[in-house]
Amino acid sequence: MGTRRSFLAGALAAPAVVSGRRYSAVEIGRMLARGDVRGRLSKEDLPTPALLLDLDAFEWNVSRMAEHLRRHGLAFRPHGKTHKCAEIARRLIRAGAVGCCAAKISEAEAFAREGIGGLLITTPVVGRDKIERAVRLARRRPDTIFSVDNPRNVADLDEAARAAGIRLNLAIDLHVGRRTGVMPGEPALRLAEQIQSLRHVRLAGLQAYAGHASHVVGFERRRQVSREAMEQAVHTRRLLESKGIPCPLLSGGSTGTYNIDVEIPGITELQPGSFIFMDVDYNRIGGRDGDFYGDFRNALTVLSTVISKPSADTAIVDAGLKAFSTDKPFPPECRTRQGISYSFAGDEHGRLTLSGEARRLELGDRIEFVIPHCDPTVNLYDRIYCVRGELVEACWRITARGMSQ
Amino acid sequence: MGTRRSFLAGALAAPAVVSGRRYSAVEIGRMLARGDVRGRLSKEDLPTPALLLDLDAFEWNVSRMAEHLRRHGLAFRPHGKTHKCAEIARRLIRAGAVGCCAAKISEAEAFAREGIGGLLITTPVVGRDKIERAVRLARRRPDTIFSVDNPRNVADLDEAARAAGIRLNLAIDLHVGRRTGVMPGEPALRLAEQIQSLRHVRLAGLQAYAGHASHVVGFERRRQVSREAMEQAVHTRRLLESKGIPCPLLSGGSTGTYNIDVEIPGITELQPGSFIFMDVDYNRIGGRDGDFYGDFRNALTVLSTVISKPSADTAIVDAGLKAFSTDKPFPPECRTRQGISYSFAGDEHGRLTLSGEARRLELGDRIEFVIPHCDPTVNLYDRIYCVRGELVEACWRITARGMSQ
Repeated sequence: MGTRRSFLAGALAAPAVVSGRRYSAVEIGRMLARGDVRGRLSKEDLPTPALLLDLDAFEWNVSRMAEHLRRHGLAFRPHGKTHKCAEIARRLIRAGAVGCCAAKISEAEAFAREGIGGLLITTPVVGRDKIERAVRLARRRPDTIFSVDNPRNVADLDEAARAAGIRLNLAIDLHVGRRTGVMPGEPALRLAEQIQSLRHVRLAGLQAYAGHASHVVGFERRRQVSREAMEQAVHTRRLLESKGIPCPLLSGGSTGTYNIDVEIPGITELQPGSFIFMDVDYNRIGGRDGDFYGDFRNALTVLSTVISKPSADTAIVDAGLKAFSTDKPFPPECRTRQGISYSFAGDEHGRLTLSGEARRLELGDRIEFVIPHCDPTVNLYDRIYCVRGELVEACWRITARGMSQ
Repeated sequence: MGTRRSFLAGALAAPAVVSGRRYSAVEIGRMLARGDVRGRLSKEDLPTPALLLDLDAFEWNVSRMAEHLRRHGLAFRPHGKTHKCAEIARRLIRAGAVGCCAAKISEAEAFAREGIGGLLITTPVVGRDKIERAVRLARRRPDTIFSVDNPRNVADLDEAARAAGIRLNLAIDLHVGRRTGVMPGEPALRLAEQIQSLRHVRLAGLQAYAGHASHVVGFERRRQVSREAMEQAVHTRRLLESKGIPCPLLSGGSTGTYNIDVEIPGITELQPGSFIFMDVDYNRIGGRDGDFYGDFRNALTVLSTVISKPSADTAIVDAGLKAFSTDKPFPPECRTRQGISYSFAGDEHGRLTLSGEARRLELGDRIEFVIPHCDPTVNLYDRIYCVRGELVEACWRITARGMSQ
């Protein structure tokens, strides 16, 4: 803090010093816009609030999950809705992923434009406009898989594929959670039979996302909830195959259940998302060994700056409702310093309650927070700064930021 | 709903029919990208989730506020952090606004690039990078006003302005709320004296945002809280002037206190934001006449599509945590139909609990929601579709979307 203060006071009108070279705000802005920052900028140079990725932690997370799934013989199709970043999708594929899940058609289009294949769109594609876009995407990327849970939607997709002279890969979305999906068992079988009867759609298999299981607190309870949900999916897969309907794919799982679902025979691939970043929410579900879920490292943070110090035990930072998602009932956490407790103070501000040493915080000091929930927070940013220690090694575009259509 | 269903089933592979002309998804995408949609698209053509602005309601809100402030002889500098949209800022200026508030330097830069003047940056600009940018902005837009609450920050700004050979306009940010600001009275006077003593900064006046007053439920209580807060600001203005320090500006106020603050002599301008859009949060604070605050019309909605119907009394829409801000303890509200109750169901989904007629909702049906909190929701979207009735009249870019730096 002391160094920051004197740095600020002394070098105010002068540019930053990194690696022996000085850069002005204009030059820094240009580097960030180009994404070309390797080894030249430090965290201190970044305009805040800024989304940071700790590359060491990220790479460790990716290789841990990839290795885990390789060992268990399951395919790995991580969910792109978490990162929305083509560069991250590419790195996951290099680590062994068979492709990338996408929540919506616009997200999948963004990944496809960047050359990402093996796309599985996990939400039903409904409506004329989106079905037309699905057909265009499938033309470009014939291995794309679309999720369906409704007979009329299947008929619509078949009709659109027929008009375009192509065949669409469909995964039946099973209602094993609390969201979309056809009921497992007989209703799913009827949908599979409908798909088998049509010429312009092809059954790729099943998708079963038990969202309610992923965040169950306590490993044993989580195992029980996930097993109950996923066994319905496994049963449905067996039912289809017993009727002579091939069902090569059963995709499911999450960061919370990655070491549970591999024990359930019949699941063919996992689609976890958050493990690459982690967040306060996942830290709280507890692991096999204790209350803190630390199977994956916290790689994602938001960097903020103290912009006001109304009293000794209060500091205001420049990161508020537009810098963090707020869907969880707990706040961002500062883990690099003691005595800092964050609360939201409007669209653009956070209020820090300070104790002990932290009362010495000053204007310009930078505070890093682990975020409550990674996916919707990443969606607030256009770029993610990749750091190793204090150095900014790269700046990646959040390719599909805002693409929820 | 019936018509939607037959439309979907019948015209699946065919393009939309609007104004006697048919458009494909590709053509619609191009129109939306260009923002050139006048009279050619209808709400039904929009990819959802989509942010909609009801132009009749918006125009009514703008003229009501402009007229109110004209009548009371106060200046009008609406807050751009609500809309982040250059086209809206231009329309407000055409209606009589003296400029546009911006929360952060990056937001102000975005407005300035689009030719918006009269900028007041309501958050202190702290740190080398941002001060450098402030100086550049002031060079381009010499009427820009920067908020300060700290002597060292004032010294830093003066030093940067000196190096650049310019003079910066400063507004002393008063701590009359629960966020940033120097204490009213003597501490503010000392900061004013410091500003007076420096050659490259100029005191424009005071800024006093009583954020805690704006959402007090109940008109009389809100009036009391706002008066208590703002009277400290008025007193400080008088104190400065009694010491011979001219203080032409006292900017404050909000949508919740627009008809309270005009009764407090000494306030020179109001900076309300939400009145142009309104949201569930403001509706709940109560007006002069009752529990529903309806002084301004609800102009902002999110349009979603039913993408799954797991049971007769449940429908899933394609708008979740990435389509609505979640900082309020109440959900989006559907006001155009009875029997629909929304709850969040993850990043990409909302769960509708249906009763009565609404149980007949079907795949592809479109549901419009009034949003809990406008500012952070608008920040999730790249564009806002301007509608009159069913017709999309324009598509405006959210110029400063994501710019919280």
